[in-house]
Amino acid sequence: MAKIMVVNCGSSSLKFQLFEMDTEDVITSGIVERIGYEDAIFTIKYNGQKETKTLSVPTHNEAVKLLLDNLLEKHIVASLDEIKGIGHRVVQGGSYFDSSVRIDDDVKAKIEELIPLAPLHNQAHLIGINACMKAMPNAGETATFDTAFHQTMPAKNYIYPIPYEYYTDHKIRKYGAHGTSHYYVSQRTLDYLGRPEHSNIIVCHLGAGASLCAVKDGQSYNTSMGLTPLAGVMMSTRCGDIDASVIDYLDENLHMSIKDITNMLNKKSGLLGVSGVSGDMRDVKAAADEGNERAKLAIDIFIRRVADYLGKYYVQLGKVDAISFTAGIGENAPWVRKLILEAVGEALGIVIDDDANENGEGERLISAPESKVKVYVIPTNEELVIARDAKKILNL
Amino acid sequence: MAKIMVVNCGSSSLKFQLFEMDTEDVITSGIVERIGYEDAIFTIKYNGQKETKTLSVPTHNEAVKLLLDNLLEKHIVASLDEIKGIGHRVVQGGSYFDSSVRIDDDVKAKIEELIPLAPLHNQAHLIGINACMKAMPNAGETATFDTAFHQTMPAKNYIYPIPYEYYTDHKIRKYGAHGTSHYYVSQRTLDYLGRPEHSNIIVCHLGAGASLCAVKDGQSYNTSMGLTPLAGVMMSTRCGDIDASVIDYLDENLHMSIKDITNMLNKKSGLLGVSGVSGDMRDVKAAADEGNERAKLAIDIFIRRVADYLGKYYVQLGKVDAISFTAGIGENAPWVRKLILEAVGEALGIVIDDDANENGEGERLISAPESKVKVYVIPTNEELVIARDAKKILNL
Repeated sequence: MAKIMVVNCGSSSLKFQLFEMDTEDVITSGIVERIGYEDAIFTIKYNGQKETKTLSVPTHNEAVKLLLDNLLEKHIVASLDEIKGIGHRVVQGGSYFDSSVRIDDDVKAKIEELIPLAPLHNQAHLIGINACMKAMPNAGETATFDTAFHQTMPAKNYIYPIPYEYYTDHKIRKYGAHGTSHYYVSQRTLDYLGRPEHSNIIVCHLGAGASLCAVKDGQSYNTSMGLTPLAGVMMSTRCGDIDASVIDYLDENLHMSIKDITNMLNKKSGLLGVSGVSGDMRDVKAAADEGNERAKLAIDIFIRRVADYLGKYYVQLGKVDAISFTAGIGENAPWVRKLILEAVGEALGIVIDDDANENGEGERLISAPESKVKVYVIPTNEELVIARDAKKILNL
Repeated sequence: MAKIMVVNCGSSSLKFQLFEMDTEDVITSGIVERIGYEDAIFTIKYNGQKETKTLSVPTHNEAVKLLLDNLLEKHIVASLDEIKGIGHRVVQGGSYFDSSVRIDDDVKAKIEELIPLAPLHNQAHLIGINACMKAMPNAGETATFDTAFHQTMPAKNYIYPIPYEYYTDHKIRKYGAHGTSHYYVSQRTLDYLGRPEHSNIIVCHLGAGASLCAVKDGQSYNTSMGLTPLAGVMMSTRCGDIDASVIDYLDENLHMSIKDITNMLNKKSGLLGVSGVSGDMRDVKAAADEGNERAKLAIDIFIRRVADYLGKYYVQLGKVDAISFTAGIGENAPWVRKLILEAVGEALGIVIDDDANENGEGERLISAPESKVKVYVIPTNEELVIARDAKKILNL
């Protein structure tokens, strides 16, 4: 039986899921956090149990070794040879990759070349890839890119209205993100729609990071994130779209450096910045329910800006067959879905099935039969896409 | 008979129109350009004639004197006392002004206080106001603000998703622009609609600068420009909306200064930047017709981004009664109107009356009877609004 490990390396973390591919069951999953520290945290889930240990994990190499040792010790695998493939999540694939690929020296060189477009992420991915190659030299390794699904966007949707040379000479364009999630959710939505020849779907991936994707005939047609994940809708701590001259204004009048401004726009803005309470929608909602005006305003802006993208993509697609919600907020906050659907409801002719929206579980239709647009909740599963791609590419 | 002069001062220019208010006729109009130079250019139109002179005009005071001397010499007025009022266009009124006002020391102080929000413009306006006061001490002076019409926007439409203190402590918010034009065009559109109790109109002011305005029951509900006129749709040389992290990327990787970047986004982007040909839509069209791919792409992006705002505002308004086009491109480029209307046509149910669109003149309906949304061309007239406001405020 072929097992595939899905690995997602951050600058100081390593997330993993081990799949049994015949059944697509997750045998074990977990995370090593605070890599590089004396008090790193290792969490592993298996057989319905969860174990957490604090220990020294100096580098990603030790993190991989820790993970593999645990797989053996806990008899999750009898031998590491059972793991035939390792699928890596890679944030930035630039214009090089429009699908998942087997990792070789050329792929690694390209991931490295793209570091300026995703400085923290791509660097960490390379470290993780090398650490896994060293520990499991016999397993095939593949990369699945967050940007790949969006490579089908037409130029008018990804070229910025700035001097064209910044695109040709410096690769500045919209790349988007959350592509693996948008792909998975749009594919599941297509299953529900009966896989028609032509289809227009809008996926709302609403988590701490959030993006929308207009999916035309199964391909990404436009998405709300840009050169980086800063753009688009309002997020937990990221501003999303904003007049770029705000940066000049802060520099000129408040003498803030561009690094401080970028940090503020990424880490202190969004729900956190407007509410002053939290970047977690649950906290913001609790504060709003207690009468906090800024928390209410933060929610109003969040809803408005998601609705704006639904309006843009409605016009771009001409008609919409389905809207699907996914990720933390999208899957678990029926009140957010309701507010968004009410905000676009008159224009798009959407009628909500309140019972299905509020009381249902998992994948489901939450629009009423008379709704002009079908609305679904589809829990995302990027890891499964990565594992399936690895299986296919490695012929497992 | 009361005459009112409308004055629009830029940093090195002074535009004027003299109205006979009983008939609202423009008796004379013109511009002094290159103020501060030895070879300033004075252009004046009257009695169907146009005169241009090159001469030294060291300051705005001399520009005002030049204008008034010409009015007397050319017997356009018998005495300067005939000019009872002067209405100034002012770009930035911040949150202080939601309508036109008589200019007094307090108003001048506020226009000065708002200079950081419109550095070139508000400073020039003050110089012009003082020069006119000095030359015509007996005429009443009023200010009409480009931002005033947008003061009715709800907070969720003007607050940026950044730390709230930047709004409360530093006035950073969306102010919008072209307010006088959006007001004039939406009022004319309301006349055509028969002045219903409730109405939803979208005004497309498409010139070298361009903005859209969602007008709900006669009031501005949202607009595409932001803290400054950089934001919103793609313009002649301005980028409009763009991922703010592009600035950080250019700083980090190309070592550009924030001033150079802001200058590039304002003056070298938009139609000019993408096409590489020109910021003038007529030149870009000519190049596209000759097969220039970048010119075609520039037009595609321009259309896409106007259509995007129509989609956003359609959803925000719930339904749209009318879309009105105005300003240089909006009034004079039927092919641009057609492409925009086709881009949103399926979603909004718009049917164009091609003959009215292409062959008509001046104010007119250009949608077919079966169109779900009425579409108009309404040549804008900001000067008339300024003159009427001055007449009313000064009780003339």
